[in-house]
Order: sequence, then structure tokens, then C-alpha cells
Amino acid sequence: MKRFMEPESVAVIGATRKNGPNAYNLVENMLRFGYQGRVFPVNPQADKILGLKAFPRVGDIGQAIDLAVVNLPRDLVIQGIRECASVGIKAAIIVGQGFADADETGKVMQRDIVTIAKTNGMRILGPNTLGVLNAFRPFTTSFMPLSRKTAPVGVICQSGIFFVGSRKFSGMMGKGIDIGNASDIGFNEALTYLGEDPDIRVVAIHMEGVDQGRKFISLASRITCKKPVVVFKTGKSEAGARAAASHSGSMAGSYQIYQAALTQAGCTLVREDWQMRDAVRALLYLPPMKGNRIAVITVTGAGGIIATDALEKYGLTLAPLSRETLSPVASLSPPWMPLGNPLDIWPAVMKHGIQKVYPNALKALLTDPSVDGVLCINVAMNLPVYAFLDVSEELNNVVSGNKPVVAWLYGENSEGIGEKLEKEEKIITFPTIEEAAWALSILRKRQAYLERISRRE
Amino acid sequence: MKRFMEPESVAVIGATRKNGPNAYNLVENMLRFGYQGRVFPVNPQADKILGLKAFPRVGDIGQAIDLAVVNLPRDLVIQGIRECASVGIKAAIIVGQGFADADETGKVMQRDIVTIAKTNGMRILGPNTLGVLNAFRPFTTSFMPLSRKTAPVGVICQSGIFFVGSRKFSGMMGKGIDIGNASDIGFNEALTYLGEDPDIRVVAIHMEGVDQGRKFISLASRITCKKPVVVFKTGKSEAGARAAASHSGSMAGSYQIYQAALTQAGCTLVREDWQMRDAVRALLYLPPMKGNRIAVITVTGAGGIIATDALEKYGLTLAPLSRETLSPVASLSPPWMPLGNPLDIWPAVMKHGIQKVYPNALKALLTDPSVDGVLCINVAMNLPVYAFLDVSEELNNVVSGNKPVVAWLYGENSEGIGEKLEKEEKIITFPTIEEAAWALSILRKRQAYLERISRRE
Repeated sequence: MKRFMEPESVAVIGATRKNGPNAYNLVENMLRFGYQGRVFPVNPQADKILGLKAFPRVGDIGQAIDLAVVNLPRDLVIQGIRECASVGIKAAIIVGQGFADADETGKVMQRDIVTIAKTNGMRILGPNTLGVLNAFRPFTTSFMPLSRKTAPVGVICQSGIFFVGSRKFSGMMGKGIDIGNASDIGFNEALTYLGEDPDIRVVAIHMEGVDQGRKFISLASRITCKKPVVVFKTGKSEAGARAAASHSGSMAGSYQIYQAALTQAGCTLVREDWQMRDAVRALLYLPPMKGNRIAVITVTGAGGIIATDALEKYGLTLAPLSRETLSPVASLSPPWMPLGNPLDIWPAVMKHGIQKVYPNALKALLTDPSVDGVLCINVAMNLPVYAFLDVSEELNNVVSGNKPVVAWLYGENSEGIGEKLEKEEKIITFPTIEEAAWALSILRKRQAYLERISRRE
Repeated sequence: MKRFMEPESVAVIGATRKNGPNAYNLVENMLRFGYQGRVFPVNPQADKILGLKAFPRVGDIGQAIDLAVVNLPRDLVIQGIRECASVGIKAAIIVGQGFADADETGKVMQRDIVTIAKTNGMRILGPNTLGVLNAFRPFTTSFMPLSRKTAPVGVICQSGIFFVGSRKFSGMMGKGIDIGNASDIGFNEALTYLGEDPDIRVVAIHMEGVDQGRKFISLASRITCKKPVVVFKTGKSEAGARAAASHSGSMAGSYQIYQAALTQAGCTLVREDWQMRDAVRALLYLPPMKGNRIAVITVTGAGGIIATDALEKYGLTLAPLSRETLSPVASLSPPWMPLGNPLDIWPAVMKHGIQKVYPNALKALLTDPSVDGVLCINVAMNLPVYAFLDVSEELNNVVSGNKPVVAWLYGENSEGIGEKLEKEEKIITFPTIEEAAWALSILRKRQAYLERISRRE
């Protein structure tokens, strides 16, 4: 995979002369992304492309090439791969569609390509792929612009949607491998690479179907001992499975079998499109959770009830809180205020100010051995005169990091205060209470898995 | 309710002399909100409050008062209500906590207050409430700052979180009634008011528990014939129900019973906190859906599969698409491209440009009698050179409004392009595919309900 992820030199076979709108010019995008290696555009109709000398054929380059990116119409791809093989190129990405994702002719072409590659010791990524992204040594073969943030999250996917839409899916992406139709390089090699990569702390996988299932599960079991692997398996429904078969030519198989095997291997399975980002953020920033007893601190009784419903839905329970744990809030609350879990601190806040109440409440909960994790609910106002309700810094000061603390904010400035709250990456906010509760539940599962495998060893 | 929602004159009993941070000064907030009526602060320690003459007691005002807002510590509230009654005030909002939401003493106090009110022909909103919000004739009794957007959405709730957090819950709020502990005015009067209010097109309700359940259901049945009523019933779990009993003193009751009765009455029931906003937006802007057959247009095969899974989850199916419907896309696609539903237009887009493909695809689907609704998936790029992928205007031009069209965008500029797409309020975007599918499902339920009641009549 190293040739694909950090090549010294790249030939782009079928580099387009157009650039700007509608060009989908991947050389332009590669340079914009900051690639520092040598780029050799190949196009018999061009002398120069974006200031780079263009070559009529790959054989004319006359220098060592780590990686070929083949961006040709499908009828020309086999010839292109043959030429790459003839000059000793050992790695090629085939961008275009129209192979196993299309008709019978395409399926045959894809098989032929793999045969040529195998005969010549060449590895193929794709077809039907944006290729790779590596923000750490800036390189991408995507013809769509991508973010270059060096996040410790590696993505393996079967569609460019997870590259271009990474903010909506994995939330962030420092390295990415789009295996596309997975004609040669598939999940196993991609996961081996990212699993062993010290830059990557969480791997997020989009999977339509996996061919070498047993091998993948055994590999995943090894990786998940060291770092979390989040899997979004699509094609769950019957109709979805049929669509997956047509899209990437994958055998989707029964979702129940995937679910059982992936869970057994310690993967964090996500079912809905919003969950991937939440899982990545929770597993990246928060510690696994030792038990399922949650304390909720809230400035609104109604919010506490919504949280209670959501926690129960995901198999978590409300921690019983001792008198000692409640005492910092009790001493500041009016005597008539019934206190429990959820812990409604609002009457105390009205009397003594939020700065005095909220951090002390959180500290007491985190100290209580019967509390495994905390969900904080707070209001986030826009108006400067209500800025005094922001306790982001104070809350961060009392979080040590051995128990997960998640937060949900409401009010016009939820995003702004959310950023402040997350600044130290100790408290993580979620856009809905549902998501905050779900995030805690996967941290619980992660810890249970780690305990299970440590008993086994 | 009119006295509460659009009073000509308001006495604020217990108006604070403080303002700015930590004051929670509701007179300050009322004036900032733009209230144009007369405000009489009552505070024996003040001569003036925010430039307004202050009165030692309500009896000293000597003018007709439509509404009293009682903002006193609980031990002083009964006396305050007595004084209001003695000068003939017929409507009072009791802001403070510490009544049925607190201890036995509080419960007794609340009963006494109601008795005094009934004896004097006075109506009570609260206790334990932010009161009301009316953006149309700007008025609020909230001590927290609120948005003044005149949205056609009315909110009834049992907690100020739905006022302050309206962006996260109902999404928007033009009028709001926080019934708090509902000691006197409850769901029925609030729903009657907003149900008949021509400014309000959708009512969104947060409900912990309702006392006069039968009456509410019969009332809701009448209102839902005319306008959608969205209900977020909390306290679903056993622990949640206990918490609800303590928060607003409500009897939460079995969620199954609520679910059956509310659904029968034609309410749109939401189970999770993110669903309220989606339901309101869908029901406000989109037409009810005549059947459950959905067409998906997508620029990514993987997105189509995720959509297929989500649609099936919510009881919707993929519409079978005729050759005629597919022909505008087929004629622009490479011959090898398999077309169906989800309709993957990407190869056609690459060949002919998105402007030529996407609007024609959408138009053909909307014309097909076997399609009841459409889900559009598109990419939303930030980089100006990729702005050509934005087809917001072109898509709006082909939507007539008799079938719902929802959209999901991915990419760095999802919010920006989303706003453009929604400009005419004909295509509504949702932050996740899950939400887009769920929104379509409630539009289906709405239509089924309307058909059921029209058959009955």
C-alpha cells in the first residue's frame, strides 16, 4: 500500500488538458492538495498540462514511476495497464467506472485487468474509485477537492462519497483508501495498512460487501485490540443488498451474519449514516466506559427526561447517586428542590450562579465510584449579556479523562460554545441527546470488548 | 389565552432591579423583544426599573392590567396572586419553581393558588414556566432571550428548553405557550388557541403527561383535520416516566397508550429529539404523500444504497421506474451504465454536465405516476471552481409541489447549497439520509390520515 499512499513519482495516464469547471482534472487537484513528488501527465494530445511536461505514452517518461493513475474511458484501460506493466510500474489506480459495476463486458474487462496485473507483479486499486488520500504527506488522486486536515482517522470505503462527504460520515479523515470495485486490493490490505499506521488512531470503514469474509474478520480481531474499527455496513435491506451488488459488484450477504461476525471481531457497527461520525469522535477522544451507569447533569428537567429515555434505549442506566455526591448541589439548591439523577441544577444556578454550581456538580459525579460516565446538558446563548452561562473552561478543568463526559447544548450558540467545550478534546458534544446517549453506549461496548479479549489472553 | 398572548398591559410582580449578566431580568427581555404595550414593574424596593416607573404593590398601579407576571420566591406567590385578584386581574403567569414540581408544601401551595384563581375568575399559566412567546405581536415573558422570527409554528411545551432550544426542537417558533406545571391552563386550552390561530400552520407539542387525556385526544382529532400537530412525548421509558412525574408533576402513563391514542387522533408522533424539527419542516413545506413509492436520484451509488436501507426501515419502497422515465438519463449515460432506482446519474453527469442531467432526471421522476415522492442526493462543494455542481435553481424550476421532494447534500458546503435549495421552500434538505427518509414517511402517514377522515365524513 505504501506505493499508493506515499509515492515519490506518479504518472497520470489520461490526464485531461482542460482545467477549471467541469474538468475534474485530477492533476490540478493533486497539485492543489500540495503533492511534492514528481507528476508525469500522459496525454498524446498535449505538450504541457498545468505547466508540467506531458508525455504521449507512459513509455516515453523514461524514469522510475511508483504509481500510475489510469483515468481513461473503459475501452482504453486494458491497453493503458499493459503499457504500465511493460515499463515495470508496480501499482496502478483505475479511476473510471464501467467494469464490474456495469455490464457483462465490464466484468470481463475487470477480470482481464487483474490477470495482466498479476502476471506482471502489479497491484490494482479500483476500478471505480477516487483512489487515495494522505493528508500527512500530502497526496491524493481524487478528482474532487478534499480537506487536508491531518486527522488521526483512516477511512476505507467503496465509494468516493466517503471522501467528499467525510464531514458527514467519518467526520474527519487523515488518510483514505477508496477500494472501489476491489478487483485486487480490498478491505484486508487496506485495513492491514491503516491498522499498523502510527498516524491513525481510529479506522472507519464503509462496506457494501466483503469477499474474503473470514480473513477480514480474523484481521479485524487483531486490529481492534489496538485501535477502534468503526464499520458502516450498507445494503442491510433486501433492496439495499441488490443495489450494492449492482454498485460495486459486491455480494452483500445477510446483514445478520455481518452484524454477528463484525461485532464478535470487536468492530463498532453503525446502522445509520449519522452514527459513523459520532462513533469516530467518541472513540477517538473519550475513554472506554467501565460500566453502564450514567449520571446526567442538566439545567432543565425536561432535558433530563429526554436523556433518560435515550439512555435506556441504548442499554444504559441512571447511576444511583449518594447523598455525598449530591451534597455540593444540595447545599446550593433551595430546600424544596428534589435532587436525584438526572441532577437538575437549575434552581441552584438561579440562586448562586452557574460558575459555582456546574463544575462542582460535575466534579462530584466524576468522583462517585458508582458513576461510569456523565452526560452534561447546558444552554448556549448568543447574546453577550448571557455569555456568563458558558462554563466550558470550568467544566474542562474538572475532567480528568478516566470517565467519558459527553455534552448536549441547546440555544442559539450551540456550535460556538460547543467548540469551546471541545477545545481540550476532553468533553465531546453531540448535536442531539439521542447521539450523546448512543456515543456513551459504544464506549461501553468498547470497554466490554477490551475486557473480554484481555481475559482470553 | 388572548390575554396571555397579546396583552395591552402587563404588571411584572417581583421585577428585579438588577439587569445584565445573572439578572434574568424579564422586563429587560420583554422590552428587548420589542413589546409595545404598557409595562408596570412592581417592586417595593425600586422607584424605577429600566426607565419605567416601578410600583410598590400591584394595587398602586391604578390602571387596567391584562396580565400579571408573577416572578416571586415561592413563599410570596400566594400573597402576590391574592393582590392581583383583588385589583381584578384575570390572567397571571407564575414563573417560579418549587410547587408541584418540588415537595409536598409546594403541591399544597399550587392547589391553594388555583383555588384563589378560580374563586376570582382568574386564569393561571404555570407555575414553573417561561410563560409565552408571540413573535407576531412581539411579546414574551421569558427571562431568557428568544428569537423573534414570525414563523408559522406554534409550540406548546412543559419546559422552557423548547423555547430557548427551539432551533434544536421545533426548528422555529412564532408563538409559544409553556404550560409548565399546568396547574390551570393546560394542553387543551393551548391547543385550542394555536389550533384556531390563522398565523399558525403547524403545532408542535412537547408532552410529559396530560391530565384530561380523553378531552385532549378529541380536541387533537379536530385540529389535525386542519393542520398538522407534532407531538414529542417524553418519559417513554420507566425511568423517564418517573423523572417526568417529578419534573412537572405529570402522570406520564404508559407510552403505548399515548402512542395509540395520539396516532389515532392524527398527531405526528416523534420519538427522538431530532425528529421534531424534521417533522415540522416536512409538514410545513411539503405536500402529504399519496403513496409510499419513492424514487432516489443520486450522484453516488453508495448514497443510493444508504437511502434504500433508510427508506425500507420507514416502510417506504423504491418505485419501479419505466423505460420512459429513465430515458432522459439513459440517453445521456454511457451505454454500459445500468440504470434503475436508485437512479445513479453520475456517469451521465461526467459526460454531459450536471446542469443538463439532474433537472431532467428529476422532472421525469416527478411526471411518472408510479412515483409518490423523490429523494435527491447531491454533492455540495466549497471551492468556487466546483460551484458548477450546484443545480439548486434548476431543480426548483421543475418542482411543482404536488409530490414531496426532499434532499440530502454531502461535501464541505452542504449548509450553503442547502439554503439555496430551500429558498423557494419547495425542496427541503435534511442533515442525514436517515432524516430525509423519515420525513417522507411522516408525509405518507399524514396523507393516509387525511384520506381516512375524509372517508369517514
